[in-house]
Amino acid sequence: MTRFDLRSDQIPTAWYNALPDLPAPLEPPLHPATNQPVGPDDLMPLFPMGLIGQEVSTEAWIDIPGEVIDILRLWRPTPLVRAERLEQALGTPARIYYKDESVSPAGSHKPNTAVPQAFYNAAEGITRLTTETGAGQWGSSLAFAAAQFDIECKVYMVRASYEQKPYRRILMETWGASVVPSPVADPTSPGSLGMAISDAVADAAPRADTHYALGSVLNHVLLHQTIIGLEAKDQLALAGEDRPDVVISSCGGGSNLAGLALPFMGDPEVRLVAVEPSSCPTLTEGAFEYDFGDTAGMTPLLPMYTLGHDFMPPSIHAGGLRYHGDAPIISNLVQHGRMEAIAYPQGKTFEAAVRFARTEGKVPAPETGHAIRGAIDEALAAKEAGEERVILFNYSGHGFLDLAAYDDYLNGRLIDV
Amino acid sequence: MTRFDLRSDQIPTAWYNALPDLPAPLEPPLHPATNQPVGPDDLMPLFPMGLIGQEVSTEAWIDIPGEVIDILRLWRPTPLVRAERLEQALGTPARIYYKDESVSPAGSHKPNTAVPQAFYNAAEGITRLTTETGAGQWGSSLAFAAAQFDIECKVYMVRASYEQKPYRRILMETWGASVVPSPVADPTSPGSLGMAISDAVADAAPRADTHYALGSVLNHVLLHQTIIGLEAKDQLALAGEDRPDVVISSCGGGSNLAGLALPFMGDPEVRLVAVEPSSCPTLTEGAFEYDFGDTAGMTPLLPMYTLGHDFMPPSIHAGGLRYHGDAPIISNLVQHGRMEAIAYPQGKTFEAAVRFARTEGKVPAPETGHAIRGAIDEALAAKEAGEERVILFNYSGHGFLDLAAYDDYLNGRLIDV
Repeated sequence: MTRFDLRSDQIPTAWYNALPDLPAPLEPPLHPATNQPVGPDDLMPLFPMGLIGQEVSTEAWIDIPGEVIDILRLWRPTPLVRAERLEQALGTPARIYYKDESVSPAGSHKPNTAVPQAFYNAAEGITRLTTETGAGQWGSSLAFAAAQFDIECKVYMVRASYEQKPYRRILMETWGASVVPSPVADPTSPGSLGMAISDAVADAAPRADTHYALGSVLNHVLLHQTIIGLEAKDQLALAGEDRPDVVISSCGGGSNLAGLALPFMGDPEVRLVAVEPSSCPTLTEGAFEYDFGDTAGMTPLLPMYTLGHDFMPPSIHAGGLRYHGDAPIISNLVQHGRMEAIAYPQGKTFEAAVRFARTEGKVPAPETGHAIRGAIDEALAAKEAGEERVILFNYSGHGFLDLAAYDDYLNGRLIDV
Repeated sequence: MTRFDLRSDQIPTAWYNALPDLPAPLEPPLHPATNQPVGPDDLMPLFPMGLIGQEVSTEAWIDIPGEVIDILRLWRPTPLVRAERLEQALGTPARIYYKDESVSPAGSHKPNTAVPQAFYNAAEGITRLTTETGAGQWGSSLAFAAAQFDIECKVYMVRASYEQKPYRRILMETWGASVVPSPVADPTSPGSLGMAISDAVADAAPRADTHYALGSVLNHVLLHQTIIGLEAKDQLALAGEDRPDVVISSCGGGSNLAGLALPFMGDPEVRLVAVEPSSCPTLTEGAFEYDFGDTAGMTPLLPMYTLGHDFMPPSIHAGGLRYHGDAPIISNLVQHGRMEAIAYPQGKTFEAAVRFARTEGKVPAPETGHAIRGAIDEALAAKEAGEERVILFNYSGHGFLDLAAYDDYLNGRLIDV
């Protein structure tokens, strides 16, 4: 329970770009119609040049604009915490640290990229953004960020979530966004992320004042998240640690994992571990191939581990991990052996989440429960081996809006897939 | 949006005891049956000696036990933030700072006293605590704290909240507490805080292993909360401010207000302002007299501003401000002119809360909306007067579990009392 804080003026001023340092060059995205590599012109109806440039940049460091830092400072630098009470409960010689991204306005790591995305769009004269959201983590982050730059924000929310989980919708509306259930064209359909992407893209593409924003998978999104790992590096030094032995995060699209792990990629002694749900085992059981980013097959084809763009995972509580593919950067690292991947059924992740809540006090998001499970098992392995391992994991979000899931778990109603 | 952080090792090591410095000595609580001053013997069935001693201590400073500091460090010191984006939106020359107590595990200032209360009880061999809770802010804080000291925790929750607001109940259960609807004896009654106090006291009084815990009003509770203002003082110095011109907090029982304001009490140039709901105007329209702390008339009589212990405020969203009386310390300060009090209808507080969310990013609890309204109006008065006032307010809790209230406000369904 010791915290290692950076001051407000110690926030990183540049993002780390992993592209030039990957084990092998990233294969390009392909146009869905022509199967030819996608160029900047293809992306301009949807994204500002500032972000398109970052998507393919070969610079190792990319400056964070001052206007972005000004807003990130509302909650950054985030705490790095040593989980001593969890260590004691496990009886492990390992030292467990977590980076607490739950302190952001929206309660997760997502605003780290929502803010620069809103900024670059505003800087190029865009006055309106559209996006899709499932349960609402990404939509609420973009709603918050758009409000900071006086950009109008329209969120297409998967209809089943819109109707059953009103809290994040209200959060988006509190920040001034307008939220509509998707698919717009079929009010009888429960919807899906793929359909919501189609709605958001179809809204943005023809309008000169409107762009589209995506919350994971793409290179520029992962770039923006590296601020997590850059801060963590400085904070581990404050804690007197040379390096972590292992860096662990949950993995859906891969942005919170990349954010923490990429800045440690260059040190071969640091193991990098992705934790995914057994019910959506993209990295552990998927195939590495070109696949569409969306269900409908409208987006470019990306080189990634995938279960197939029509794969429908069961309705687990960690909605943010229910994605059929993975970010190309993450896929590249796993393909070339630089990153490990493990999978857990959700019961084991909730057991870990409750253990964390009772020792460290904080109630994690179901997604974050995966990282905690990974960290606990690593700490138990260290105990078994009698080794003083240094474990770093990403506390990617809080569970205040996911308490119904805990109710299911505590009362034996959880379907343990 | 500049943050002024203290390091983990700069957490205060003593609480400030306001009792010896009040404008006039505090009149003693009276026994409900005999009308004679209550002595330690009367309190021993319910409270540990460590807390009974603090209730009447005349020492100016009381050391915080190391075991308590170890747990407070899970989230303390909390941030002090300058709300520059709000200042800009208001066009005010005032500098607005807020102390962010929402970062605690339970999401409010309440764990500041739940942790020492659990500690002193555990230190005296108590293995079980009971308490009451309305919507659950206090109950969840005690559930968290009890889990840290392996104390069993039983929470009597007002039945109407138990049935309609399951989220904080689940939070309590996640931390291992057992939660039952109150009144236990009458399953058809919606219950009230007064009835729940009776249930919790009736459970604790006859059992040697069990004590009772209260989340506001009493002197020792306010003492524990002074850590808020003590940190804020150090952080204002970091920000280059000599002193705040005015300190503002919402006021229900008075613990978050006292926590921020008491450490500034000794400086006559600092104005102290309590903000309460118009629908429960204890300080602005109540009478100063002896009254019971609970509805049923079982607790000692306290010298305080009160609307009468049978006063039933309307069901506003700021449930934590629906108390018929005020802490004796707060009442003493208002009675002797050291503290001001203002009241707002809830519509104005939600307007302020939404303005805050859209400028500073964070969505406040409805209770906290009262402090924000007070701070905004003070900033607008400074603008009118052309004065550079330094305003400090308490951001006492987040609104993630109160989003239904925002939904009502944004859609014109709020009853504006």
